[in-house]
Amino acid sequence: MIIEVIKPRFCETDALGHINNTRVAQWFEGAREPIFKLFTPDLDVNKWKLILAKTVVEFHLELKYGSDIEIKTSISRIGNSSFDVYQEAWQGSKKCASGTAVMVHYNYEQEKAEPIPELILQNFNEHFIS
Amino acid sequence: MIIEVIKPRFCETDALGHINNTRVAQWFEGAREPIFKLFTPDLDVNKWKLILAKTVVEFHLELKYGSDIEIKTSISRIGNSSFDVYQEAWQGSKKCASGTAVMVHYNYEQEKAEPIPELILQNFNEHFIS
Amino acid sequence: MIIEVIKPRFCETDALGHINNTRVAQWFEGAREPIFKLFTPDLDVNKWKLILAKTVVEFHLELKYGSDIEIKTSISRIGNSSFDVYQEAWQGSKKCASGTAVMVHYNYEQEKAEPIPELILQNFNEHFIS
Amino acid sequence: MIIEVIKPRFCETDALGHINNTRVAQWFEGAREPIFKLFTPDLDVNKWKLILAKTVVEFHLELKYGSDIEIKTSISRIGNSSFDVYQEAWQGSKKCASGTAVMVHYNYEQEKAEPIPELILQNFNEHFIS
Repeated sequence: MIIEVIKPRFCETDALGHINNTRVAQWFEGAREPIFKLFTPDLDVNKWKLILAKTVVEFHLELKYGSDIEIKTSISRIGNSSFDVYQEAWQGSKKCASGTAVMVHYNYEQEKAEPIPELILQNFNEHFIS
Repeated sequence: MIIEVIKPRFCETDALGHINNTRVAQWFEGAREPIFKLFTPDLDVNKWKLILAKTVVEFHLELKYGSDIEIKTSISRIGNSSFDVYQEAWQGSKKCASGTAVMVHYNYEQEKAEPIPELILQNFNEHFIS
Repeated sequence: MIIEVIKPRFCETDALGHINNTRVAQWFEGAREPIFKLFTPDLDVNKWKLILAKTVVEFHLELKYGSDIEIKTSISRIGNSSFDVYQEAWQGSKKCASGTAVMVHYNYEQEKAEPIPELILQNFNEHFIS
Repeated sequence: MIIEVIKPRFCETDALGHINNTRVAQWFEGAREPIFKLFTPDLDVNKWKLILAKTVVEFHLELKYGSDIEIKTSISRIGNSSFDVYQEAWQGSKKCASGTAVMVHYNYEQEKAEPIPELILQNFNEHFIS
């Protein structure tokens, strides 16, 4: 499991007084960066190898401005060319949101999905599943 | 069904050259405004009556900068206190993204879900389901 | 002068109950699209010819969620390789924000500023200055 | 001077391949939080005492995705009821953007500017000016 701590920004609140729900998807995408790096170590977008097929976010409790958020990221499913990233957003001792991103190992030049390389599967096991 | 046409903004692209996936959730939330108005006609956040429980977004095709997007919004499920809003993002003749938001009629003062009022259910039928 | 009408999105409010100030810069950038098109008619980012040197935004009155915003855009200064875009955000009969973006005609390959082409200067005069 | 380190998020890039310029204003606002706390220690928006009058951002070099950004914040001018916050965004050893936010000590109930309290002026001197 990977943990990233972020500080909510004032512009991420909304008129209801809490963090706007759409920000969670942005934090989750940001916290998937270590996974992006497994596929594209230098994060060069010209060598990008992933596409996003689907995101699910569930909102359990309001996220508040003024205290840090802990984003927990792990791999929850491994298919042939696709895999699921499961993420949670914690504030204090409370799980406030959780979600899953379905990602696909993708060849942009040939415009088709490709099997996840063996080396990356090993990294999945070592670093992202506990 | 409600249709809203939006123009993607330059800041909504990302380094892969297309619209960033997290923007779709923001457009979908924006396009739910007619539904917000059924519950809070003047959109006064102090009288807000909805919370968001869950969002699902599926990405079918890349959304591009430079041409309009049509957001189609309808009610796809009506429960006792909750309901589903189904939405699609079309660019040209292509459905590029689709998703569902699970919303709950909520009493913020008493912090509990409440049945959807009969009057609003009628509006659901008249305006959002075809 | 170019006018674009936008509908504020719920996610663009902040906890103070109004539109977050940082959104104005995003709306202004979006409303500069007709100017981007003078330099890159098909908006292909691989042929981009502009860089942004500076932005100034002044906040006169709160922008509110729930009613349309009119963005007015014009060219306010023309230099050799740079020019200023002056913009205002109106809600109802009130000018709520105004600002200036300093843009530079730029050759990304050679990494240097270049004089604004004569043809574009003519378009500036015809369409953006009144 | 206050220093905050942030990690750019993928959704903060744009199609030109770098960080979108409008994000700098959001990072700068986020990095002004220690100043917000001088006026509203618990960051409760119902007791907010500041409004933003103007922002200026200058873009010196492209900010890139994939490495941390250091935001440096200090007070650069102190007036009677208003003050300037000067900020810089550094990536590696390079100053990529800088800017000034003009803020006003404001009484929201009476809708008027008020002199900056003496206690806060002392904090300005101790913590933000070096």
